[in-house]
Amino acid sequence: MKRRDVLTGAGALALAGCAGEPACDTAAGDQQTFSWKMVTTWPPNFPGMGTGVARMVEQIERASNGRLKIHVYAAGELVPAMEVFDTVSRGTVQMGHGAAYYWKGKSESTQFFTAIPFGMTVMEMNGWLYFGGGLELYRELYGEFNLMPFPAGNTGVQMGGWFNREINSIDDLKGLIMRIPGMGGAVLERAGGTPVTLPGGEIFTSLQTGAIDATEWVGPYNDMIMGLQEAARYYYYPGWQEPGPTLECIINTEAWALLPPDLQTIVELACATLNDQMTAEFSARNAEYLAELEQDLSVEIRQFPADVLKTLRKYTDELMAELIDRDPAAAKIHASFSAYKKKAARWSALSEQAFLNARST
Amino acid sequence: MKRRDVLTGAGALALAGCAGEPACDTAAGDQQTFSWKMVTTWPPNFPGMGTGVARMVEQIERASNGRLKIHVYAAGELVPAMEVFDTVSRGTVQMGHGAAYYWKGKSESTQFFTAIPFGMTVMEMNGWLYFGGGLELYRELYGEFNLMPFPAGNTGVQMGGWFNREINSIDDLKGLIMRIPGMGGAVLERAGGTPVTLPGGEIFTSLQTGAIDATEWVGPYNDMIMGLQEAARYYYYPGWQEPGPTLECIINTEAWALLPPDLQTIVELACATLNDQMTAEFSARNAEYLAELEQDLSVEIRQFPADVLKTLRKYTDELMAELIDRDPAAAKIHASFSAYKKKAARWSALSEQAFLNARST
Repeated sequence: MKRRDVLTGAGALALAGCAGEPACDTAAGDQQTFSWKMVTTWPPNFPGMGTGVARMVEQIERASNGRLKIHVYAAGELVPAMEVFDTVSRGTVQMGHGAAYYWKGKSESTQFFTAIPFGMTVMEMNGWLYFGGGLELYRELYGEFNLMPFPAGNTGVQMGGWFNREINSIDDLKGLIMRIPGMGGAVLERAGGTPVTLPGGEIFTSLQTGAIDATEWVGPYNDMIMGLQEAARYYYYPGWQEPGPTLECIINTEAWALLPPDLQTIVELACATLNDQMTAEFSARNAEYLAELEQDLSVEIRQFPADVLKTLRKYTDELMAELIDRDPAAAKIHASFSAYKKKAARWSALSEQAFLNARST
Repeated sequence: MKRRDVLTGAGALALAGCAGEPACDTAAGDQQTFSWKMVTTWPPNFPGMGTGVARMVEQIERASNGRLKIHVYAAGELVPAMEVFDTVSRGTVQMGHGAAYYWKGKSESTQFFTAIPFGMTVMEMNGWLYFGGGLELYRELYGEFNLMPFPAGNTGVQMGGWFNREINSIDDLKGLIMRIPGMGGAVLERAGGTPVTLPGGEIFTSLQTGAIDATEWVGPYNDMIMGLQEAARYYYYPGWQEPGPTLECIINTEAWALLPPDLQTIVELACATLNDQMTAEFSARNAEYLAELEQDLSVEIRQFPADVLKTLRKYTDELMAELIDRDPAAAKIHASFSAYKKKAARWSALSEQAFLNARST
């Protein structure tokens, strides 16, 4: 697929008729209307994600003058969060919203399209996806599952988490029981810790009772709404495990092909708008909540020592080498990801990083 | 205006009839079509900006199924770049694309909506504009000129520029003749340099002949297309003067009010999409061109010493204090900008900056 096609959409798709499409209500040339269902991995009105999806669906309905209506289901309302991928893949519903790395059971290489420890920032991810070949690879992988993915939101750098002890050396991670999913969890395990998976609703109590020693969640905005700063006396650390987690809209390819080109374009624009505005929302709300958090004298913000970060990076590299070795799809995507990242990281060092350092000098 | 309204658009505007709208071709209920003209401040196909605007206009035409067609004029084709604001304000054409700080002759406070030296990054600007009250202030200011502005693109951190000498102390800026516009230029002047304004087409020759000692332009992508790396033996420095320059779409308020709500929403989505994708394009292309530039052994990339940056920041603060003093509109906008920036900078330090430092440790 040519780069231009990725950005402008499959505009060449013929206008499809209505026959055989269950969600197609009426047919009147290009004025046919569609009623879609969308399942998501987020609790109802989840701050940032759930609210962003609600805004997107309103925008699509208004932009299409009511020709594309989408009913959103929060996690568990129609299917559990972890069944979103399969539900859209089978065409039971037309659309979903979540994060690619939730589907690593389907393919481990989905992780590249959300976040990799020590991977890429928001701007780097967007550069790779839209203009660096990433979206073509994403669509190739998801095409095998009858899915068309769109980048549709980003939380920005997630915090490293809340810890009941200071982390002064890599040995302080030994025996640490931490709620940390995905590849970050595998890295912790290699450092001698015990990663556990917990649903959002159980994190606060587990932390408060000491069932876990540490947890990561998102950032000041979501963490404080969950009350993590009140769970106990805790140290809060910056992130290394999810530098620019991209969220996704997924659309069943048959449902997609039945949309006329104007509605396809409206969906594409709405996803890109969510990609822009959800990032902005997290940026604003995290800043606001952090300012409040820093009034709380019981929370201490720390930095991981350089040698801890170096060791975590070394473990990440080892895990990545093993992944590439066992999974040819991951090897192919990693080749694109890492070649892009190398150049992008150099540019970030000379632009964002140099500026942020200059401003805080 | 409530925050939600800013993001979802003035959806409450009644569907307007066609009478009196010269660009309105036919009328048939909500199927009326519009042919708009758009003037821009960019040369034809200008990399990043011109190409991004062309993509946006195609998206609008496809999303509206041809009901909103926009003919784009490059700078000078219909009016010179510096007349874009007035041309749209008067309603001679419906739409424009450029950068708010070009219009500081109209109001000095326009500068806050593009970039201020040592100001805000892309993510910080978007947070302020969409969720921190910035867009309300932007629309209030532009409303006086019959204009409705939308954030519509960003170059990311611009480079500090090309210098024919190393800058080892603030004294090295004394007597320096540099092409640097806007508030960055005023800061240079305070440091004893001579800022000059030159159209893009004259920069290369001025640098090559020694008529100027230094120039800033955009970043590796645009700078190298202009050939600046070949103008002479030069030092290339990271930026401090334009950390997250937001570009704008401006629409004449009467033309805007005549659009039905679905087309208004399509325009809003297309502007936000450009805001997302132009940033991604600069991110990708700058990384690519920088990698090429670093093969060029005659170019040396340097960092400004900390005390030079501190002095430039001090001059920026002085100039800002003077601006606030003479311009009440600037004082009002500055109050919002600087309060937001204070919180956002702290969050960036703990998220993007901490991560970038961790990755490069």
